Amino acid sequence: MNVLIIFAHPERNSLNGALLDIARNELEASGHTVQVSDLYAMKWKTDIDRKDFPSFPADERLKVASASAESFSSHTLTPDVEAEQKKLLWADTVILQFPLWWFSMPAILKGWVDRVYSCGFTYGVGEHSDKRWGDRYGEGTMAGKRAMLIVTAGGWPEHYSSRGINGPIDDILFPITHGILFYPGFTVLPSFVAYRVDRLNEQEFSILSDKFKERIQTLATTSPIPYRNQNDGDYTIPTMLLKSGLEKAGTSGFELHLKAEPHL
Amino acid sequence: MNVLIIFAHPERNSLNGALLDIARNELEASGHTVQVSDLYAMKWKTDIDRKDFPSFPADERLKVASASAESFSSHTLTPDVEAEQKKLLWADTVILQFPLWWFSMPAILKGWVDRVYSCGFTYGVGEHSDKRWGDRYGEGTMAGKRAMLIVTAGGWPEHYSSRGINGPIDDILFPITHGILFYPGFTVLPSFVAYRVDRLNEQEFSILSDKFKERIQTLATTSPIPYRNQNDGDYTIPTMLLKSGLEKAGTSGFELHLKAEPHL
Repeated sequence: MNVLIIFAHPERNSLNGALLDIARNELEASGHTVQVSDLYAMKWKTDIDRKDFPSFPADERLKVASASAESFSSHTLTPDVEAEQKKLLWADTVILQFPLWWFSMPAILKGWVDRVYSCGFTYGVGEHSDKRWGDRYGEGTMAGKRAMLIVTAGGWPEHYSSRGINGPIDDILFPITHGILFYPGFTVLPSFVAYRVDRLNEQEFSILSDKFKERIQTLATTSPIPYRNQNDGDYTIPTMLLKSGLEKAGTSGFELHLKAEPHL
Repeated sequence: MNVLIIFAHPERNSLNGALLDIARNELEASGHTVQVSDLYAMKWKTDIDRKDFPSFPADERLKVASASAESFSSHTLTPDVEAEQKKLLWADTVILQFPLWWFSMPAILKGWVDRVYSCGFTYGVGEHSDKRWGDRYGEGTMAGKRAMLIVTAGGWPEHYSSRGINGPIDDILFPITHGILFYPGFTVLPSFVAYRVDRLNEQEFSILSDKFKERIQTLATTSPIPYRNQNDGDYTIPTMLLKSGLEKAGTSGFELHLKAEPHL
């Protein structure tokens, strides 16, 4: 198995760094190959701008999606972006690892997504017509690959539970798991979330570490989140509304986009 | 009224740029004062790292929250961050304006939040004990100020509707409206979202522009999103769970954190 870990933490000597070491060691001990993009260590360029499209005319109004599409199709993206795209194509499994900052990913990781997710690569893929709205949400360039999030949070698990004040963690992460991972075709595994990470003692770390190793060892077999594929008939085209009657009674919000019965 | 607009788009000659001009003109014509932080134009430093805490010992392990708390309380943050914090304190109303990229804000704006939202300024404020979990979610440094999002999206409104494949727009934006704006105390107005923005013709722009002017003119009077204040008795402490029976039957997910009856 080829595993790519995108690591977004400014301090290597941190709980996130320790989890990264565990993941790499566990995977390599099982004969898998691991590549890590340590974004802070790489001094990753975070913001997408004109410099991302060297062949784009300097005096022309920048439309990001079309500049991205042209640069992707003409192979004129910058080398740092092309290198990350190659890693994604190489990988069977992709992990995004980050501390939850303000209920989302650190800016440096968002900038990795903004820049590496080119038009023609992870969006704008496939036929777009009255009958088909592209290859996305379960189809696309990343189809057949698995992906998951490893997240650390300072708050308590209760705060992120179904009635917790922050909102349920799976809903907070939905714009990432569904919008960034499922969209270009990944099969998405349930997120691994560690809570109260600023106050872990040795025993708590040991328990966390055991749970984490279990998740890493079962990457290939863990049941994915049962998101609905866009092009399996559940949605109207082109309005992309979930057809009525497909959900369990009383379901609403993001949960509508999970199949009523989890699949294996 | 003092209005601060945080603008996060790489191209000033864009729909976002046009909306920014409209907002500024409308507000100034009504006698309000406007400051704009145009993050790309300012060459805003996006990623939080050691350089954000010049007084922090170079050989010490970086814990972001504690380094942030120390630097904030000792007034040793960097001048760019201090300038943004001053603008926030100056403003009565704060607007975050951005294109929706991958179901969230562009990295440069996330980096503005990550860096400007210091510990002691927008989190870690107030008493933290068994009886009180800080001044947040309706209380805090930004209490009494209003805030809203101005968002542009390429997709159709249907795709972001209650049954749309992307998920409902208010849920997609909840980590921002609730987690980034309501958390430090802002009164949060409903988001202004423009859809299908890559294909607007002149007539469509004119309709959009009129709706937008209306929202800008009513900033001071628009009814806010009725999020529940943390410290008004709706939540258990310290687990911060919504007490049972407070919601309308059948409510779940993020919607639990809205008062059952909208207030004025």
